[in-house]
Parts: sequence; structure tokens; C-alpha cells
Amino acid sequence: MISTNEYFEGNVKSLGYTSTTGKSTVGVMEAGEYEFGTSTHETMHVVEGEMTVKLPNSSEWTTYKAGASYEIEANEKFQVKVSEQTAYLCQYK
Amino acid sequence: MISTNEYFEGNVKSLGYTSTTGKSTVGVMEAGEYEFGTSTHETMHVVEGEMTVKLPNSSEWTTYKAGASYEIEANEKFQVKVSEQTAYLCQYK
Repeated sequence: MISTNEYFEGNVKSLGYTSTTGKSTVGVMEAGEYEFGTSTHETMHVVEGEMTVKLPNSSEWTTYKAGASYEIEANEKFQVKVSEQTAYLCQYK
Repeated sequence: MISTNEYFEGNVKSLGYTSTTGKSTVGVMEAGEYEFGTSTHETMHVVEGEMTVKLPNSSEWTTYKAGASYEIEANEKFQVKVSEQTAYLCQYK
């Protein structure tokens, strides 16, 4: 089954599925600023567009373009700023 | 706005958005075999999983893994076989 998920009043939407290596989502964020929380380890890949991210325990914002990725441990919070509609792949483990 | 689309009775779902270079969708296909038609030129990128594809005017099936892409001209039909849930990015122009 492919699940359909909406967050932040529909400003972030994702499709959930299971790959051979575990659960994943592909999604799209509207331009905006978001705080996400993790319940498992996440690897976020920028598919199209770009994200500017403040990782947990960091005071710096880093911009990740299409093809780049970053990782977040379980039970952390991180901030994301997006200036255009941006697509991502998130892999959970 | 991020549009939510379903095809093949929910076996293919996608999210539509607009990037700096044009319209795109990210989507997920359930295991199965599908025929798609194009109304514009499409570049399909495999994001996770793999697709086995018969391009228009081809008699051969070619497998594209994550990171690979292929292009289809407008007003063509092509066949796709998927053996696991597979995520893709489709760019229209």
C-alpha cells in the first residue's frame, strides 16, 4: 500500500512505501520554514529544489541541493527552510 | 499547491509541483505492469527501487535502477514493469 500523508496544513505532503532496505517516503514541501521531529534515524535526500537545514545541536544553516543528503538520529528535531517547492526522499531505519 | 494524484486504482500515486525548470511529479508505483501515455516530453528518474521499461518503438525491455533516468517524447506510450514499490521523479517540458 502507498500511504498519503499531509503535514503543516498540506504544505508538506508525502507518499509512504517500503523499499528493499526499509520504510521510505517521497514528498514535496511548499516554500516555508518547518521543524520536523524524528522517531527513527532518517536519511534525507533532496530530489529536486533545495533545502537549507539546521541540524540538531548545530547553530549553522547548511544548504543541500538536488542530489545531496543529510542524516538525523532518532528522537531529534531539525529545522528546514525551503524557498521553492522542493521534492525529497526520506529513508527510515 | 501540491497536487495529489492517483492512477491505476491507487497502484500509482504522485505529488505534483512546479520546480524552477518546470512541472514535476514525485510518485510511487506498486509492483505491477503499467502502460503510460505522455502529453509532453517526460524525463523519468528512478529515485528508489527499479523499473523495467519498454520505450516507444522499442521491442526491448531495459531495467533502470535508482539514479538512472530515461526520456519519452510527447504523445507516446511506454510500458513499465515494477517488482517492488518504486519511487520516481518525472519532469515535464
